[in-house]
Amino acid sequence: ADSPATDMNAPEAEVWLPTLLTDTPQQGFELAVGMARRAVKTAQPDVEVLKSLRPGYATDAGSLIDVSGVAATWFATIAAANDYWRE
Amino acid sequence: ADSPATDMNAPEAEVWLPTLLTDTPQQGFELAVGMARRAVKTAQPDVEVLKSLRPGYATDAGSLIDVSGVAATWFATIAAANDYWRE
Amino acid sequence: ADSPATDMNAPEAEVWLPTLLTDTPQQGFELAVGMARRAVKTAQPDVEVLKSLRPGYATDAGSLIDVSGVAATWFATIAAANDYWRE
Amino acid sequence: ADSPATDMNAPEAEVWLPTLLTDTPQQGFELAVGMARRAVKTAQPDVEVLKSLRPGYATDAGSLIDVSGVAATWFATIAAANDYWRE
Amino acid sequence: ADSPATDMNAPEAEVWLPTLLTDTPQQGFELAVGMARRAVKTAQPDVEVLKSLRPGYATDAGSLIDVSGVAATWFATIAAANDYWRE
Amino acid sequence: ADSPATDMNAPEAEVWLPTLLTDTPQQGFELAVGMARRAVKTAQPDVEVLKSLRPGYATDAGSLIDVSGVAATWFATIAAANDYWRE
Repeated sequence: ADSPATDMNAPEAEVWLPTLLTDTPQQGFELAVGMARRAVKTAQPDVEVLKSLRPGYATDAGSLIDVSGVAATWFATIAAANDYWRE
Repeated sequence: ADSPATDMNAPEAEVWLPTLLTDTPQQGFELAVGMARRAVKTAQPDVEVLKSLRPGYATDAGSLIDVSGVAATWFATIAAANDYWRE
Repeated sequence: ADSPATDMNAPEAEVWLPTLLTDTPQQGFELAVGMARRAVKTAQPDVEVLKSLRPGYATDAGSLIDVSGVAATWFATIAAANDYWRE
Repeated sequence: ADSPATDMNAPEAEVWLPTLLTDTPQQGFELAVGMARRAVKTAQPDVEVLKSLRPGYATDAGSLIDVSGVAATWFATIAAANDYWRE
Repeated sequence: ADSPATDMNAPEAEVWLPTLLTDTPQQGFELAVGMARRAVKTAQPDVEVLKSLRPGYATDAGSLIDVSGVAATWFATIAAANDYWRE
Repeated sequence: ADSPATDMNAPEAEVWLPTLLTDTPQQGFELAVGMARRAVKTAQPDVEVLKSLRPGYATDAGSLIDVSGVAATWFATIAAANDYWRE
């Protein structure tokens, strides 16, 4: 299907997201954190810039609260994908 | 159905969103980023203005965190559309 | 049913939302943007005021990011209503 | 069941929310706006104070965008309750 | 299961949340408000401090809008738990 | 599956999230608070820094409201995982 995803020159040709399925909730949590960071990199690909921002947001309560909220949204999708690791 | 969508003069007549279905989670992630940017353009169609704003938000931790949260919300819908690529 | 919806004097008697169903995802996206704007008008019905605010938020990265997040939430509901236009 | 809802002295004994079911999506939208306003009143019951705040938020783009996002979250629940008014 | 919930010394040993099920949508709304306030107390258990903050947020439009958005997120879960009080 | 979760050096090798299933809604609420805090620690692992930030956000209404919203998003996923503790 010719969706915007295919015609947008994907910044990284590497396959970093083969699946949403993980063996455990904890891996799902780490995948959520990984996807959250990937989404940040779509707006700021320069890792050095991102590192330079860390001292700021990592000592700002508001930012840290927002980081958790963003992780929660990514995790919600991954948990649903894995049927909440119920069985 | 005569919903507000049809009577609103769609800014771009081009078909940019034929489907929410993608082959892989990574394409789904890229589609989410693409839809997030499209939604920004409904409020600011001028790409030059958007480019001028980039140095600002791309070096602001709060904005980058929010970008990830927005991508997460778009991705949640696309992932559900694709039944989380579970096949 | 006598819910607050019926006893609240609906600002506009016009029928602007006959259905959440659209033929395509792109129409669903436009309906989401339309509903997002309608919700703004429930708090500020004066279109001239809204127009006067545009230069401000349309050149503010934070606002534009938030606009996309709001559209994403409206779109999530419309996409579910249309079973993600899967068939 | 003795949940916090029953032992919390409900601010208004009136029955204002008999059901989430509405006949049309538009009524569902109005119910969402009504519930959003009710939630504000749980934090600020004084309607005069709320009226005094209107000129401020109704001319502030950021607040208006947030109002739409909040309405979207209430609407998502009401739409699901009504099975998206599909039939 | 030895999840963080059990090994974290629960701030209040009292059983305040026996169930998410309520008889009516309005009780569900009140439970949502109750849970939202409980979540605040996990970060600030001192009720006197919370009371001292009220005059501030209760006269701030942005805070009141955010309060409604938070209640909407709690309510969404409670409504789903109660199958939207459909029958 | 070689997802970013596995190739990212997990900050803590300890198993802190064996399951999303809890016996009661209240334990689910505490797990949500625990996961929210864990997500904060992915951005700021230094507990002393986190403690130093507490006096600030714990007396700031905006932050406390946001804390509740974040907990609500984590709780939504946990409640779904536990089928809302319906039986």
